[in-house]
Amino acid sequence: MTQWARFRTETYVGFGILENDQILEHEGAMFEAPRPTGRSLAPDTFRLLSPCTPSKIVALWNNFHALAAKLGKRAPQHPLFLIKSATSVIGPHEPIERPAGYVGKIAFEGELGIVIGKQAKNVPPSKAGDYIFGYTCVNDVTASDLLFEHGDFPQWTRSKSFDTFGCLGPVIATDFELAGTNLTTRLDGALRQNYPLSDMIFPPHELVSRISHDVSLLPGDVIACGTSLGVGSIKDGVTVEVIIDGIGSLLNTLAPAIR
Amino acid sequence: MTQWARFRTETYVGFGILENDQILEHEGAMFEAPRPTGRSLAPDTFRLLSPCTPSKIVALWNNFHALAAKLGKRAPQHPLFLIKSATSVIGPHEPIERPAGYVGKIAFEGELGIVIGKQAKNVPPSKAGDYIFGYTCVNDVTASDLLFEHGDFPQWTRSKSFDTFGCLGPVIATDFELAGTNLTTRLDGALRQNYPLSDMIFPPHELVSRISHDVSLLPGDVIACGTSLGVGSIKDGVTVEVIIDGIGSLLNTLAPAIR
Repeated sequence: MTQWARFRTETYVGFGILENDQILEHEGAMFEAPRPTGRSLAPDTFRLLSPCTPSKIVALWNNFHALAAKLGKRAPQHPLFLIKSATSVIGPHEPIERPAGYVGKIAFEGELGIVIGKQAKNVPPSKAGDYIFGYTCVNDVTASDLLFEHGDFPQWTRSKSFDTFGCLGPVIATDFELAGTNLTTRLDGALRQNYPLSDMIFPPHELVSRISHDVSLLPGDVIACGTSLGVGSIKDGVTVEVIIDGIGSLLNTLAPAIR
Repeated sequence: MTQWARFRTETYVGFGILENDQILEHEGAMFEAPRPTGRSLAPDTFRLLSPCTPSKIVALWNNFHALAAKLGKRAPQHPLFLIKSATSVIGPHEPIERPAGYVGKIAFEGELGIVIGKQAKNVPPSKAGDYIFGYTCVNDVTASDLLFEHGDFPQWTRSKSFDTFGCLGPVIATDFELAGTNLTTRLDGALRQNYPLSDMIFPPHELVSRISHDVSLLPGDVIACGTSLGVGSIKDGVTVEVIIDGIGSLLNTLAPAIR
């Protein structure tokens, strides 16, 4: 398994393979035969950025059996999704910011993210793996008090698209094995989510195939696979950590409110 | 008033000012002090493309008083929107394509589109004009049978994000005067929509300001201002024309079904 990362040094932005806390720098395009530069970066010389810069995040609703059962929702016949704005993206250790003027609840949702490796349209399920570059952790942050504020129109896009509400990282793991892997989410260290990724209603290959029939997917695009039991709200100043074995720990703090 | 257009010749893609059916070619970036190249292109040497390539289309729901009244909906307190995928964009005279396997209704929605000229975040209404580059025509095509197919989750994004469902053009008009201007939509020449743009619940400056507090807007992004009375479905092979005086006529045909 390879772990791809984007990074920033004092002078430039680059990408490469994360190995033993070092970056083996690469050049070219991450999704198209990148070449090693021969340089390696020591741990204290860079900080990680979001591992990709998607043109869009396709975010799933109601994609886990356990959460559907708890909410009394039937399993959908087709993936239910919205687009979360690409401008919401931040990387590991970047602060989540409360929207100006919004005093309501801000929810965390720990999710698996599929990172698309090449343009995908009308892809059959049997070929979907060819279009998946790898997997990352997602915290699909949501201004949950806005969701159903207007009775006629649930504001999925608005509540999830604020700047800093799309936390991605720390890396993109290729050849990730979903079976037997749990996602856990911690709030200031306290366990809040711990669910098996194998409980998905539409697993990754099915998602890529079906969504590619609805919306063309571009290299770097992320499908956030939806969340399961244990979601809740983040108090100002609290740190959220989304952890998936084989991918790592994505850590972001909701910035303390400015008084 | 200036009309900006993107075009393709036999050998390259460019942009410039459309004047008397000719293009006065420019170089640089359309939204940042573009410079005339000195070349002008005769009408039969190019075809128009979508006048911009947005990173996202923010599409309004319930933004006209007349349509809200007809549907018995109350006017919202804040713009209600979804993101329509940028991969849906086509330009004038490009065919709208029926999604593979979808046999349901395909609706047209003639709309005014605001084209953003510079990055916009938390913009006050009084400054919103500085962030508007100009205006274009939009046909916000929708696979309407999918919208409420699943009772728990209206599929706004899915039904509006298919490739070719975001028709933009023919040009971006700067200094466009909304007051006193109607939008008309014709199906194979027959008038189907004819509504005053001044009937908007949230007019353009208000939209740019409010939406910029929710989602950062980037140069080239389009806000589709929502539609009003007269929407309906397009039969295969039928041509839709969205016309706004001062911007022009945006014409697209729903490709005949392949049997």
